[in-house]
Amino acid sequence: MLLRRHHHHRLFRLRLLLLHHHHHQFQSFSTLTIPLSHPTYIIWSSNTSLGKTLVSTGLSSSFLLSPSSSSKKFLYLKPLQTGFPSDSDSRFLFQKLSSLSLSRNLPLFSSHSVLLSSLPAAKSFKPNEFSLNESREMCELGFYEEKKVLEAGRVAPELVSETIYAWEGALSPHFAAEREGGAVEDSELVKRLETRLKEGLLEGGVERGKLDGFCVVETAGGVASPGPSGTLQCDLYRPLRFPGVLVGDGRLGGISGTISAYESLKLRGYDVVAIVIEDHGLINEIPLKSYLRSRVPVFVLPPIPQDPSNDLMEWFDESCNVFNSLKDIMLEAYLERMRRLNEMPRKAGDVFWWPFTQHKLVPPSTVTVIDSRCGENFSVYKVQNKEYITQQFDACASWWTQGPDATLQTELARDMGYAAARFGHVMFPENVYEPALECAELLLDGVGKGWATRVYFSDNGSTAIEIALKMAFRKFSSDHGILPELLKNNPTESCTELMVLALKGSYHGDTLGAMEAQAPSYTGRGLFLDPPTVFMHNGKWTVSLPEVFHSATLKPEDTTFRSRDEIFLKSRDESNLAGLYSLYVSQQLSQYSTLSETNKQIGALIMEPIIQGAGGMHMVDPLFQRMLVNECRHCRIPVIFDEVFTGFWRLGVESAAELLGCVPDIACFGKLMTGGIIPLAATMATDAIFDSFTGDSKLKALLHGHSYSAHAMGCTAAAKSIKWFKDPNTNLNITSEKSQKMMLRELWDAELVQQFSSHPSISRVVTLGTLFALELQADESDAGYASLYARSLVQMLREDGIYTRPLGNVIYVMCGPCTSPKMCTLQLLKLYTKLEEFTLVKTKMNII
Amino acid sequence: MLLRRHHHHRLFRLRLLLLHHHHHQFQSFSTLTIPLSHPTYIIWSSNTSLGKTLVSTGLSSSFLLSPSSSSKKFLYLKPLQTGFPSDSDSRFLFQKLSSLSLSRNLPLFSSHSVLLSSLPAAKSFKPNEFSLNESREMCELGFYEEKKVLEAGRVAPELVSETIYAWEGALSPHFAAEREGGAVEDSELVKRLETRLKEGLLEGGVERGKLDGFCVVETAGGVASPGPSGTLQCDLYRPLRFPGVLVGDGRLGGISGTISAYESLKLRGYDVVAIVIEDHGLINEIPLKSYLRSRVPVFVLPPIPQDPSNDLMEWFDESCNVFNSLKDIMLEAYLERMRRLNEMPRKAGDVFWWPFTQHKLVPPSTVTVIDSRCGENFSVYKVQNKEYITQQFDACASWWTQGPDATLQTELARDMGYAAARFGHVMFPENVYEPALECAELLLDGVGKGWATRVYFSDNGSTAIEIALKMAFRKFSSDHGILPELLKNNPTESCTELMVLALKGSYHGDTLGAMEAQAPSYTGRGLFLDPPTVFMHNGKWTVSLPEVFHSATLKPEDTTFRSRDEIFLKSRDESNLAGLYSLYVSQQLSQYSTLSETNKQIGALIMEPIIQGAGGMHMVDPLFQRMLVNECRHCRIPVIFDEVFTGFWRLGVESAAELLGCVPDIACFGKLMTGGIIPLAATMATDAIFDSFTGDSKLKALLHGHSYSAHAMGCTAAAKSIKWFKDPNTNLNITSEKSQKMMLRELWDAELVQQFSSHPSISRVVTLGTLFALELQADESDAGYASLYARSLVQMLREDGIYTRPLGNVIYVMCGPCTSPKMCTLQLLKLYTKLEEFTLVKTKMNII
Repeated sequence: MLLRRHHHHRLFRLRLLLLHHHHHQFQSFSTLTIPLSHPTYIIWSSNTSLGKTLVSTGLSSSFLLSPSSSSKKFLYLKPLQTGFPSDSDSRFLFQKLSSLSLSRNLPLFSSHSVLLSSLPAAKSFKPNEFSLNESREMCELGFYEEKKVLEAGRVAPELVSETIYAWEGALSPHFAAEREGGAVEDSELVKRLETRLKEGLLEGGVERGKLDGFCVVETAGGVASPGPSGTLQCDLYRPLRFPGVLVGDGRLGGISGTISAYESLKLRGYDVVAIVIEDHGLINEIPLKSYLRSRVPVFVLPPIPQDPSNDLMEWFDESCNVFNSLKDIMLEAYLERMRRLNEMPRKAGDVFWWPFTQHKLVPPSTVTVIDSRCGENFSVYKVQNKEYITQQFDACASWWTQGPDATLQTELARDMGYAAARFGHVMFPENVYEPALECAELLLDGVGKGWATRVYFSDNGSTAIEIALKMAFRKFSSDHGILPELLKNNPTESCTELMVLALKGSYHGDTLGAMEAQAPSYTGRGLFLDPPTVFMHNGKWTVSLPEVFHSATLKPEDTTFRSRDEIFLKSRDESNLAGLYSLYVSQQLSQYSTLSETNKQIGALIMEPIIQGAGGMHMVDPLFQRMLVNECRHCRIPVIFDEVFTGFWRLGVESAAELLGCVPDIACFGKLMTGGIIPLAATMATDAIFDSFTGDSKLKALLHGHSYSAHAMGCTAAAKSIKWFKDPNTNLNITSEKSQKMMLRELWDAELVQQFSSHPSISRVVTLGTLFALELQADESDAGYASLYARSLVQMLREDGIYTRPLGNVIYVMCGPCTSPKMCTLQLLKLYTKLEEFTLVKTKMNII
Repeated sequence: MLLRRHHHHRLFRLRLLLLHHHHHQFQSFSTLTIPLSHPTYIIWSSNTSLGKTLVSTGLSSSFLLSPSSSSKKFLYLKPLQTGFPSDSDSRFLFQKLSSLSLSRNLPLFSSHSVLLSSLPAAKSFKPNEFSLNESREMCELGFYEEKKVLEAGRVAPELVSETIYAWEGALSPHFAAEREGGAVEDSELVKRLETRLKEGLLEGGVERGKLDGFCVVETAGGVASPGPSGTLQCDLYRPLRFPGVLVGDGRLGGISGTISAYESLKLRGYDVVAIVIEDHGLINEIPLKSYLRSRVPVFVLPPIPQDPSNDLMEWFDESCNVFNSLKDIMLEAYLERMRRLNEMPRKAGDVFWWPFTQHKLVPPSTVTVIDSRCGENFSVYKVQNKEYITQQFDACASWWTQGPDATLQTELARDMGYAAARFGHVMFPENVYEPALECAELLLDGVGKGWATRVYFSDNGSTAIEIALKMAFRKFSSDHGILPELLKNNPTESCTELMVLALKGSYHGDTLGAMEAQAPSYTGRGLFLDPPTVFMHNGKWTVSLPEVFHSATLKPEDTTFRSRDEIFLKSRDESNLAGLYSLYVSQQLSQYSTLSETNKQIGALIMEPIIQGAGGMHMVDPLFQRMLVNECRHCRIPVIFDEVFTGFWRLGVESAAELLGCVPDIACFGKLMTGGIIPLAATMATDAIFDSFTGDSKLKALLHGHSYSAHAMGCTAAAKSIKWFKDPNTNLNITSEKSQKMMLRELWDAELVQQFSSHPSISRVVTLGTLFALELQADESDAGYASLYARSLVQMLREDGIYTRPLGNVIYVMCGPCTSPKMCTLQLLKLYTKLEEFTLVKTKMNII
């Protein structure tokens, strides 16, 4: 009973939190859901005044004004209208379609509305209703009109034509908004558009699979014309990623503008299903088709009458065939897309061999179909009664690599295009090219600052580790005057066997060399120590010590901390615990000292500084790791930091070595180094390491390499991301308040984290930098990597818009270095709610 | 004497060949060299009529018309002029600058010329000189005029204003050329532009480092307006990759066009140092600057007077400061670029750790500075008296990955931008997204057709091999009921040690697991057979047999071939040699049969089909490999084909297995799979292999993976390239003449190859698909991987425009699957010439 009351109390507090946060802060982050039960297209243009609205009108007439259109519904949305009320594209379309229905003698029920406008536009439109107060907000205009052209006994097809936001000035929306007031946040605009799409058509009774709905969203100006906030429209609408039709330019010079506009759309991940141009007698369609290699059909509209008194009825009749073909292409592309989306889960299960996956446990119904990603969010295709695309926050940070928000993603996309176009691929040895050099310089001036002098590029963390081991073993051998096994000429030659010193629970990759450095090692060439770990439980950070360190000399303050910062204090080096750690390590090392009789020696220390990722998001006591490094230095054993997971702000600082307070001889980086969009890894080393490979013979060199070493795209992405993440102008999370060192501000709400750590279902919590992790309390039988215990919780989270993949019973939420604390809090709130549900279900099951 | 005469005879024949080829076929491939001793900029525009020529004029006046300009020279080139003679931008600039010099009372020597035009334009311009014959060629117009505004005792600065090609119609150049005749090949245009640049300024006495020369190339229309051949100008000028200034659009809608044009330039690898727009009162510069994050300065010109009678003298005076600042930015960007290019070799040597490289042997002077690549060619920065950029054919095919010609490179660049923008990175396990699925389907329908059913993605060849070994060992273990070492729980547990069967001279990557499969194996877990090889010598293809196969039963026709095709004939399976091969292999295998007493067993066969790449471009007798596969099948040993090097048309067919005439159980692909621009690898397997990992526990799955598995950009590049290479519409080398199978036409001139194979300095030649390789005859001491014997030849080749990197004494030229036979022949001719020089030098040295 008490437990139950306690439980209710927790839920109540959470609801308050949700309530508090939700309305004021989180509206903009709420999950977008886009219906796919009917086609929705965006109409782009390469410039203003090329006839977007004529194309929209032609499409709507083709869709609605035919004998078989009776139950159809066409939704036209104009999110941004300037020059209002004298210009109104939604009114134009509404009026033209009504006229066409009359002239063609076909029934039509049409409506027209204008939802919001700036005050000047409102006053201009309804002079009597809007007063002169100086509102900088958009006004609810709420204008509505309708027309009916009916035929007895027949259902009329329906047109809904809407303008969402209107301004008076015939200017670019950003300029009009600045002049007239009525600033609109990007997220507000997108959210309202999403709502209008759903309400305007879906709820209107359009049935699945009958193709009786069609929706068109018409942009303002050119593809890259700014919206009201100044964000370019092609960026603004990106989270929705509707397929598009591009209205190009048939005039002199128009080929160029059309191709460039097309490329700006491709550079933002849009699909373009057709291009439409007006005939100006220049046959621009020929070079367009040739350049686009017939991938995109190009339609040509008859010349548009310039006489303003022309009602265009004849022109629309002439253009009828073009619009019918265009509409057919758009319907076909929609159907083809749906077919593909629907077959993807089954096909994936048939042809993929997923890593780390027991295929027998993955039926098609559990496969996630990812249509695209924008910043931190996946757009996932789902079918639940209706087909739709919905957002999921990628809490796996696409498996620990993801860094970009939507802005950086677009920047990186352009840079990838540039790098591929400028360099393609360029082989590396004995060559130099800008991206490789810039990247190396940034690495040495950043994560390598103060210790590293050389950068060795490879393709992924595994290979970076293999290279590091080869470097370390060579250095150890040359320091200790021995012939390492890697250099021997035949396998029977007797020589010293070099082993790695590593920590239990570590992970350094899956190639055989990398696997030797993690327990269980397949050849047994490793000495694995059991490390003390730190975590938060019941609101307190505590060290959990392996039995070997249990000692009467320890005081409580040696193993508990008032704050997370205390864990990293250098002053702990003077504690009793530090002594215990050192003693233990030196004892372990002495077994393999050069004086011992065995032919085995420890040739390298390798460890993930601070956090062991794949091992279960364990925070290793940094004091222990520091003592370990000290002892190895003492024995001249090269020290390797595996920062593939921890590097580049993953833990809130550029390099986890900063938290540890000591530097390695060799360090490996990967994953987030490129911003998380393309594979590239680097093994960095000191001069002393490098020198052990220098000599007169090529055979003394490090004879390891990969064809794509230092590939231009990877280095370009890395250079951009390294700079972006540490620049306070581009990464708002960067702060250097507390110390000289740059670090990320705290992203995880302290109060919420406390609450998690006190939850009865949770055995430990770890937060640091971009990482929030918790371990579920579970029976022995439900623990470990292969455990399916968390499966139902993961399922609930995915349905609530969080894409997670557990490590056994460890659930984590990982964000990028630029993710806003607000977005993080929203995920924690959702996680907490689902955790409560999960606990309730598990409790009930246990009672039963 | 006889030798000498023979030598002369060879040289004579070669010269004939060169002569014959050169003038008729190879002009378009001749090496471009671009002076960098002074700035050269290209003036782009987002549309027609935005004021490119006004900007050129303003720049020339800023550069030439100042008191300190006395010895300066400005070259203005208009490669394409339409609407001629009524429109002539070079004449406009010539006249305006003369007027400005008069009005500002500053001396100037200016000249104006128009070189070539279509016949209608020529007739219009000089009605008396050009007759009415129906020439479709461009006419030598040869028009020249000059003006002098001199000042006593002072050297006048000099303006050279030139139009290269002119057409009469005020149309896009492609349309004008079609109507009026005067088609101009892209390569001809670029070559002529290069020549004018060099002659117009360099030879004019501009001194290095004095900044007394400046050159501007003004495009026609927008950035993507077609040139005379129909190729877009941004593609047409790409081999020159001049930095640019973009004249944007200050009108309503102009922000969009300007940004899109900028992006089209970036998507082709161009640098843009400034944007210039005309003031239309819309402050377009603010969103432009904001979007470009101040990376590119935006200049605003005062409104241009619309009155045609206005001589613009006042406007130029008003714009003076803007043009001065623009010119300064252009000069600064030039100086900064030169500074960087000059410091690169030293910096590279200081911070890089190149793979496979003994740094001590690489002084800065031998480092190649690669400014960019376009198709098959590097653009390399050099200083020899003057600074310049010159082309080198990348005969290393960027280390065996390179596939795209210039067209595919641009296509891939756009696709890379699209993939990054649409997906960024998306984690793979249990997910599906379009590029990964499409790529897997194409792989299974192509290189995996008929045998593979699963695709396992990784990042490079090494990791693909490690995965293949894990697959093979599991399959072997489950087939033979043994516990493989990789699955054991602790190293002391007794179990069977699985070994690989591989060929001497093989290379499968540098990670430790991959290294185990090549001799010398570092743990000795390999059985390495010495394979028979095939090569051409003295015009004949011959098998070279290891001693073990020497036998009296062999007939001459068993070991020599009338053609290369004969080597691959299935009918050889009936030969005596086939029997010898089989017997040998089965004897070797029997040592490790399951019945033997040792705890070692052969768990996998791994080999590079047909060509051992890194081992020295050795062609292994396909008959031997086929027999090897047969015997392994017999013993139920899984067969792995390492097609990382051989796959995707490297050897003239999509998969080298096609040449071998048998299929593997597992195959690895990488390098060319993505077209050679981004790392991605695939391990493909049969259902039987996959099934050995299927079960109820996750622990039975293949627990190997990399964060970037099946990354979207890599899969997108692979899908595009796989389709592109095998489509006869995009790859003109594709032919299916001889058989049903698609293959590349012969790229290496048969007569030349014969000649190489008979050269006294050459011990063997191998050609197949995109590969031409030769081994230099060398003493024992000069042989092997670390040999420096070929160094001087390599140096000579690099100076002649071929970038090679030898494998010891093996020199190879490798092209892409789309490279034209002409381009290949040109490289062979150059190689032959340099080989003669090299031989002469070596011979002389030996005599001395």
